[in-house]
Amino acid sequence: MRKEKIDEIKKSFAELKTLYMEKLKSIENTFLTVQTYKCVLNNGHTIKREKILKGKKDGSAAIIFPITEDNEVLLAIEPRVFTNKTVDIGFPSGYIEENETPETSAIRELEEETGYTSDDLIYLGSFYQDQGCSGAYNYYYLAKNCRKVKEQKLDKSEFIKYILVTFEELEELVEEGFIKGLNSAYAIEKGKSYIRRM
Amino acid sequence: MRKEKIDEIKKSFAELKTLYMEKLKSIENTFLTVQTYKCVLNNGHTIKREKILKGKKDGSAAIIFPITEDNEVLLAIEPRVFTNKTVDIGFPSGYIEENETPETSAIRELEEETGYTSDDLIYLGSFYQDQGCSGAYNYYYLAKNCRKVKEQKLDKSEFIKYILVTFEELEELVEEGFIKGLNSAYAIEKGKSYIRRM
Repeated sequence: MRKEKIDEIKKSFAELKTLYMEKLKSIENTFLTVQTYKCVLNNGHTIKREKILKGKKDGSAAIIFPITEDNEVLLAIEPRVFTNKTVDIGFPSGYIEENETPETSAIRELEEETGYTSDDLIYLGSFYQDQGCSGAYNYYYLAKNCRKVKEQKLDKSEFIKYILVTFEELEELVEEGFIKGLNSAYAIEKGKSYIRRM
Repeated sequence: MRKEKIDEIKKSFAELKTLYMEKLKSIENTFLTVQTYKCVLNNGHTIKREKILKGKKDGSAAIIFPITEDNEVLLAIEPRVFTNKTVDIGFPSGYIEENETPETSAIRELEEETGYTSDDLIYLGSFYQDQGCSGAYNYYYLAKNCRKVKEQKLDKSEFIKYILVTFEELEELVEEGFIKGLNSAYAIEKGKSYIRRM
């Protein structure tokens, strides 16, 4: 990286950083909370921003791209009531609970949603899901050598079907618009780069 | 795609789809609104889900991976007050306004945030940003041949710096954890696949 570019980026980061924040308001629903903050930036300006919490937390999640011992890909089908088709197919995923590491959470969610487990988790990346109005920071993993060890274990309001497909079928499902979630889309692209290098 | 797999997916989609939804509650903040819905699924179960609106709309956005005539990449640096560093660097992006196509929105946001425009927009994909609790459906583009045509045009509460980097520097910025937004992360991975095929 050219030194002048690093300097330019650091200068902008310093100028735009938040010096302090004050919570002005918090409105709680059963699951979602919206908080309003006044933020004083280092450039002297004050801006207001609203933040979403999920279950009183940031709502950070683990997303798992599971590959079985037979080299098949595991996908979860579940209701997504606010989308066009009201159902989506994608990777197992779920919120990281208190006192869990992202890795522990990834294995737990994989086991709960599909009954499969993995002894070979590969970190693909971690990113803010919607940084304009949330602190949710998601972790993406490839889970290799997945094998069925138990039954699904779902909450009362969770209805998840899982399915095994080939890599070619996974590509087709993206191309034909079955897989429509950004979390799965990122994990597929990043996972493919990883697999190509294997 | 194997016929039995398509049938299995279609059967699950049919079983899990929402037959009808009823809005139970709506709480509006200045920017964010949270709505509570009761959803009756085709499997006979009823679930409750909460939905986020941004500025009374779904909050669908256009994200632009801009490449200049000199083969440099344009990035925007802006306050992201709820993230660890409170500032992030990533691709120009913004909400799609009423009566705009995603393409019109992409060009408008690129021009407003950087003063650059493009006559060669390439569609990379479109996905739900957070389908569990939002209908926001984002469009991702590669914008080629970008050239500077005007000055930035920012809202009063927008503070955006832009910077030009090489493709190698873009990779470094991801690896070193400067680029932390999922929208940019997806566009980078997908954009790279596209560029490799050019």
